[in-house]
Amino acid sequence: MSNLFVGVELGGTNLRCAVIDEADGHKLVSRYETPTAAHEGCNAVVKRIGDGIIAAMKEAGVGPDDVRAAGVGVPGPIDQLRGIVHSTPNMPGWNMVPLADILQKATGLKTYVENDANCAGWGEYVAGAGRGVRHMMMVTLGTGIGGAIIIDGKLHIGRDGAAGELGHVCIIDGGLPCGCGARGCVEAYASATAVVRRFIHYLDDGWHSPLHEKRDFLTSYDIFTAAEAGDPVALRIVEETGHFLGVMASDVAELLNPERCVVSGGMIQAGENLFNAMRNTCMTRNQHPGRTMEIIPAALGGNAGLIGAADQAKVKLAAGDVI
Amino acid sequence: MSNLFVGVELGGTNLRCAVIDEADGHKLVSRYETPTAAHEGCNAVVKRIGDGIIAAMKEAGVGPDDVRAAGVGVPGPIDQLRGIVHSTPNMPGWNMVPLADILQKATGLKTYVENDANCAGWGEYVAGAGRGVRHMMMVTLGTGIGGAIIIDGKLHIGRDGAAGELGHVCIIDGGLPCGCGARGCVEAYASATAVVRRFIHYLDDGWHSPLHEKRDFLTSYDIFTAAEAGDPVALRIVEETGHFLGVMASDVAELLNPERCVVSGGMIQAGENLFNAMRNTCMTRNQHPGRTMEIIPAALGGNAGLIGAADQAKVKLAAGDVI
Repeated sequence: MSNLFVGVELGGTNLRCAVIDEADGHKLVSRYETPTAAHEGCNAVVKRIGDGIIAAMKEAGVGPDDVRAAGVGVPGPIDQLRGIVHSTPNMPGWNMVPLADILQKATGLKTYVENDANCAGWGEYVAGAGRGVRHMMMVTLGTGIGGAIIIDGKLHIGRDGAAGELGHVCIIDGGLPCGCGARGCVEAYASATAVVRRFIHYLDDGWHSPLHEKRDFLTSYDIFTAAEAGDPVALRIVEETGHFLGVMASDVAELLNPERCVVSGGMIQAGENLFNAMRNTCMTRNQHPGRTMEIIPAALGGNAGLIGAADQAKVKLAAGDVI
Repeated sequence: MSNLFVGVELGGTNLRCAVIDEADGHKLVSRYETPTAAHEGCNAVVKRIGDGIIAAMKEAGVGPDDVRAAGVGVPGPIDQLRGIVHSTPNMPGWNMVPLADILQKATGLKTYVENDANCAGWGEYVAGAGRGVRHMMMVTLGTGIGGAIIIDGKLHIGRDGAAGELGHVCIIDGGLPCGCGARGCVEAYASATAVVRRFIHYLDDGWHSPLHEKRDFLTSYDIFTAAEAGDPVALRIVEETGHFLGVMASDVAELLNPERCVVSGGMIQAGENLFNAMRNTCMTRNQHPGRTMEIIPAALGGNAGLIGAADQAKVKLAAGDVI
């Protein structure tokens, strides 16, 4: 039997599909990418996913009989068991979409859906920075903060498939408002958007930084670069961000005592200043004898989500989950 | 083969041992209790545990050949696999004690050790308020705040056996100092001790309450009783306490998405005022579609720890863990 699986990553900007050889170190046999064009609405995007899967198979020179299953990572809450997408906060018009069923009919492949952050975390776990441990947390830093939790070698999705929402751990009760409606979530302090917002707040309070002239079109990347170059305001922001992430990670350590925390997303470009602040806060907070947790950057870059989606399809197929 | 197990609960004040029939609904066949007398030091207490196990077996009319194993719940961090107690914060002189080995020699029973809060949580899971679910959190409210996490029907202890420390989840970064050395832990706001401290703080700020005359010897129970009787300051403290616990519980819900949160310990006497405030904060914070978590009081009272310790011994014996 073949060990080929299809992995799909549905992003707000791009849709990516790959045929992956699970027997050959999660190697990408083919890779197809196209703009998601989310503004065209749900039906158009769903059709595009099916077409993308078929295109990836064609590029790999295989058909539905050669591929065992497809896994699709979706940016939003889903019902894994039924393959239904509840909604996608950043794409209009998605509401209780039976995505697995539709794609299965379109492609001829048994199809599973999973949350995109869970796919990326699972990808790092099986093929990247999480290899060799049994308990892992992954935190994905971007416009928002996502994550995944691996317990005893299994992706933990919880009762309703809604586990792993690391971005909405509360670090300051009553603190800054978060996009989720609550206050004080770590996402409101340490996402790329929040980093820029906090930096501008410092500027507006009269702190001096060479970045002042870029005030209205700053990115988190500008801030990380300035911190590396020695800008004390930028460095302070990076260290505070690491601290906030460290508070959240220390909460996960208190609750779950994982061996490793893998950090992914564009913000890991902030480098050791960010990581060391995060490690320092974790070490200071978690004084339990014997408790240790490595905090390291992700290893797979942009392929974690594809690899994880394909491998989750393999795991679910083996477990006999119905879609 | 018999289905008798011994459960032991080692408390700072009392030591309790029971022979429990796992085949008969976790029934306590015998129950032996004696003061721990922790001030006499580690060796005396360890000997007392062995004597207590033997006394419980004698009272049940059985011997080491009739009992399959013993489980001991210990108030402190332990190495479950080796049966070693790292330390016990509230009992002097315990430091890397090979408790399982010593007790096994003293009693003739295969012996397992586990954290006491984990035992209580497991007891509620198998025989109390946690029955019928797969993912559960238990929070134990007392002088400190402890807890346990059950994932997919298994007690989750983590890499170093240190998981389930719900009391040290940070709810306010940089907030009140906690006994653990960190700041802002939920224990610093919502333990019985913290409740009294916060109430006195209100009194000293000039709030009026009939409890003022008891200022120097208040207990959390006084405050809960006053809240029931309509004292607005006491009621405010109870509702704030429920809110703080709700923030912590909502963090666990974001991370793990359990079906049920079981709350145990003397403080559940605070009743529906406490529970409703906790539920309200959880509902407000956790807006993820499909995510739900019941928050209910524990059902077993003082026997949860004994039943959980005995049942964990059964689970570990079946899994073939070495001590």
